[in-house]
Amino acid sequence: MNHEYFMRAAIQEALKAYDEGEVPVGAVIVKEGIIIGRGYNRMEHLPDATAHAEIIAISAASSRLESWRLDECTIYVTLEPCLMCMGALMQARISSIIYGASDPRAGAVDSHYYAQEIERTYGYYPSVTPEISAHECANLLTTFFEEKRKKEKS
Amino acid sequence: MNHEYFMRAAIQEALKAYDEGEVPVGAVIVKEGIIIGRGYNRMEHLPDATAHAEIIAISAASSRLESWRLDECTIYVTLEPCLMCMGALMQARISSIIYGASDPRAGAVDSHYYAQEIERTYGYYPSVTPEISAHECANLLTTFFEEKRKKEKS
Repeated sequence: MNHEYFMRAAIQEALKAYDEGEVPVGAVIVKEGIIIGRGYNRMEHLPDATAHAEIIAISAASSRLESWRLDECTIYVTLEPCLMCMGALMQARISSIIYGASDPRAGAVDSHYYAQEIERTYGYYPSVTPEISAHECANLLTTFFEEKRKKEKS
Repeated sequence: MNHEYFMRAAIQEALKAYDEGEVPVGAVIVKEGIIIGRGYNRMEHLPDATAHAEIIAISAASSRLESWRLDECTIYVTLEPCLMCMGALMQARISSIIYGASDPRAGAVDSHYYAQEIERTYGYYPSVTPEISAHECANLLTTFFEEKRKKEKS
C-alpha cells in the first residue's frame, strides 16, 4: 500500500465534508498499515473552530488505541495542517505527516516558518511528505469555493 | 468584575481535573462579562491529546454562541497555552488571552517564539495578559506533580 492509497481514503473523508457544505478537508490516521481514525472538517455544522479533520481524526485514533499517544502513526490529510492541527499532531506525538495540497494562507508545516521553534519546543519534528495527490486535493477545494461563490451570486 | 474573579472560575475548572487525576489546568471563556464556556484537561481520561482545557472551553463557548467565531471573547486559562491551543484560539478569532502560570516547557504565547509568525499567518494577534493569580495556578500544578511522584514511589 502506498501514500496515494491512504490519501484516497482521506479524500473520501473530504468528500463527506463537501456533501455537508463544509470546506472539503479530510484526514485518516494509519498505524501498521491500518486506518485507525478518520475525520473531516465540521467547523460550520457543529459549529466549532476546533472541528478540523485532523483534530477529529486524532480523537478517533486515540479512542481506538485507548491512548493519547500516536507515536508510530502517520496522518494523511488533504490540506497542509494549520497551526492548531500541527500543534495537536505534536501533542499526540505523531511520527509522520503526509499532506495533499499546500495552504499558503494558513499552512503551518511548510507555508509558514514554525518548524524550527516547534522542534525546539517538542524536542522532535515529524517526517513530512507534501504534495501527495496534491492536484486532486486542491481541485476539490477550488471546486467547492467556485460553487460557493456561484450560489452567493445567484 | 476583574481578572482575578474569572481566573478563580478557571481555577475551579482546574480543580475538577485535579480530582480526576489529570494535570490540573482549567479555562473559562467570557463574553460581555458572562462565562459562556468552561473546560478542564481530560487528556488521560478520554484519552485524547487534544482534550486540553482550552479546546473543550472553545467547543462549549461555540456551542453556546452557535458560532465558531469567538471574537470579542476572552479566555482565562490557568496555564500558558500550548501551540495547539494557541492555534485553536487563533482559529476561533479570540480577542484576549489571560493566563495564570507560565509554561517554560511548552508555552506558545510567551515562553517560545511564535508570536511574530502567528501574527503574519492570521493578520492579528490577541491581547495577552500573563501572570494573573500565577502563584495559585502554579501551586496547583506543583502539588499535583509532587503527589503523583509520591504515589509512584510508594
